[in-house]
Amino acid sequence: MTTTLHGAIAEDLRERIRDGRLEVGGLVPSESELCEQWKTSRAPVRQALATLRSEGVISGGRGRRSTVNPNAIGQPFDTLMSYSAWVRSLGRTPGQRTLELALRPADTAAAAVLDIEEGALVVQGLRLRLLDGVPVMLERATYLESVGRLLFDFDSDSGSQWEFLQGRGVEFAAASHTIDAVAADEIDAAQLDVSAGTPLLRQRRTARDPHGVVIEHNDDRYLPTEIAFTLENAPNMRTPLVRRAQPGEKERE
Amino acid sequence: MTTTLHGAIAEDLRERIRDGRLEVGGLVPSESELCEQWKTSRAPVRQALATLRSEGVISGGRGRRSTVNPNAIGQPFDTLMSYSAWVRSLGRTPGQRTLELALRPADTAAAAVLDIEEGALVVQGLRLRLLDGVPVMLERATYLESVGRLLFDFDSDSGSQWEFLQGRGVEFAAASHTIDAVAADEIDAAQLDVSAGTPLLRQRRTARDPHGVVIEHNDDRYLPTEIAFTLENAPNMRTPLVRRAQPGEKERE
Repeated sequence: MTTTLHGAIAEDLRERIRDGRLEVGGLVPSESELCEQWKTSRAPVRQALATLRSEGVISGGRGRRSTVNPNAIGQPFDTLMSYSAWVRSLGRTPGQRTLELALRPADTAAAAVLDIEEGALVVQGLRLRLLDGVPVMLERATYLESVGRLLFDFDSDSGSQWEFLQGRGVEFAAASHTIDAVAADEIDAAQLDVSAGTPLLRQRRTARDPHGVVIEHNDDRYLPTEIAFTLENAPNMRTPLVRRAQPGEKERE
Repeated sequence: MTTTLHGAIAEDLRERIRDGRLEVGGLVPSESELCEQWKTSRAPVRQALATLRSEGVISGGRGRRSTVNPNAIGQPFDTLMSYSAWVRSLGRTPGQRTLELALRPADTAAAAVLDIEEGALVVQGLRLRLLDGVPVMLERATYLESVGRLLFDFDSDSGSQWEFLQGRGVEFAAASHTIDAVAADEIDAAQLDVSAGTPLLRQRRTARDPHGVVIEHNDDRYLPTEIAFTLENAPNMRTPLVRRAQPGEKERE
């Protein structure tokens, strides 16, 4: 839809950031370089840079060379997969309190999310996640037995299960996320210190190994006063975030 | 993080879908073509295709040529911006009931989201959005006066305000979205036919023109039993969805 020259210049820079040709934290090409590259005068180049600045994609300008903002275009796989990695990327302190790590037969819900037989063994963890010492999220994880068993060797109060599992050779090849809202149940309420029924922001995640086998399912419930998801988009950008109708969701709950 | 050949083949195909070299609905290259391109045997190619199939990015296989799934990698700008365009992309019927379209001085909240002076005129719309005749979302829109005034010429029960405004020359150059959860207030509850306090999935959106000026702010509240947001990701993919800590959110509400 963008047909203006400044729009095309801005979109080209976004694309270079997305695919890594321009590094996060690195310098954006100078106005002169962009004029040379696009065989144009300064006006459209300046407008493209102003647009990216207004979107929060780059910072600087007014005499200083612009730089690519961290998280301007998005976050890498690990900070979306690992709560600890994400909090560290903010320069803040992650924390967790493990409330349970259990080996048990899969109930109907656990069997459905892992796509296994009901009654097969699974490992389930319940952890409260902290941001600078403050509880912000309650995490319910369900692992395929072979993967989850590794966690019994892990001090799960010490950091990222996700990083630990990768260190043990578990390969996370893809993940599907569903984001919606849910009322705090009695467990959420007690741990997050809110009333039952309080709206929570829920992120459910299914992670697969390179063979497409589901190895982990997470149900993470965030205090929406503390955590949100954000997204920047523009014409000519396809975004991986998709709005979906949820027929049958009520029956599955 | 993906260092395997099948992982690289899969990521290359994802990238070709994301940037449009492979069209949504179109054919994925055949196994033979991929073997030729990567100078490899069939095993890694088959594994790459199996991964993409398990992620829902492509369908087919088992003898039939694979095709790229609609919305596999993401949705284009218009289906994320326009509720009507999105519902039509599902092959379902969008609908709306306009409850109010008002010209009024900006209160503190409206002034803050549009980044204008309190008391400046704005246009505010309240619309109930339907999916196949069923209410699923309540939309509160706030427009800059010059843009919003155009809507008084529009039969807002007839379809997409967003498409109408573009037809009148309004250019949407970028948008920022924030997704969280909120308790239904009395207005939400009455219109969406739920009890006050019911958790709703909230998407707030700020849209800018090519000069970076905020021209529209939306506060859309979805029934989470009906609508969710989903996202697929994988190593080596930066995703534009970012998890954010919200310090000060409580004060802003």
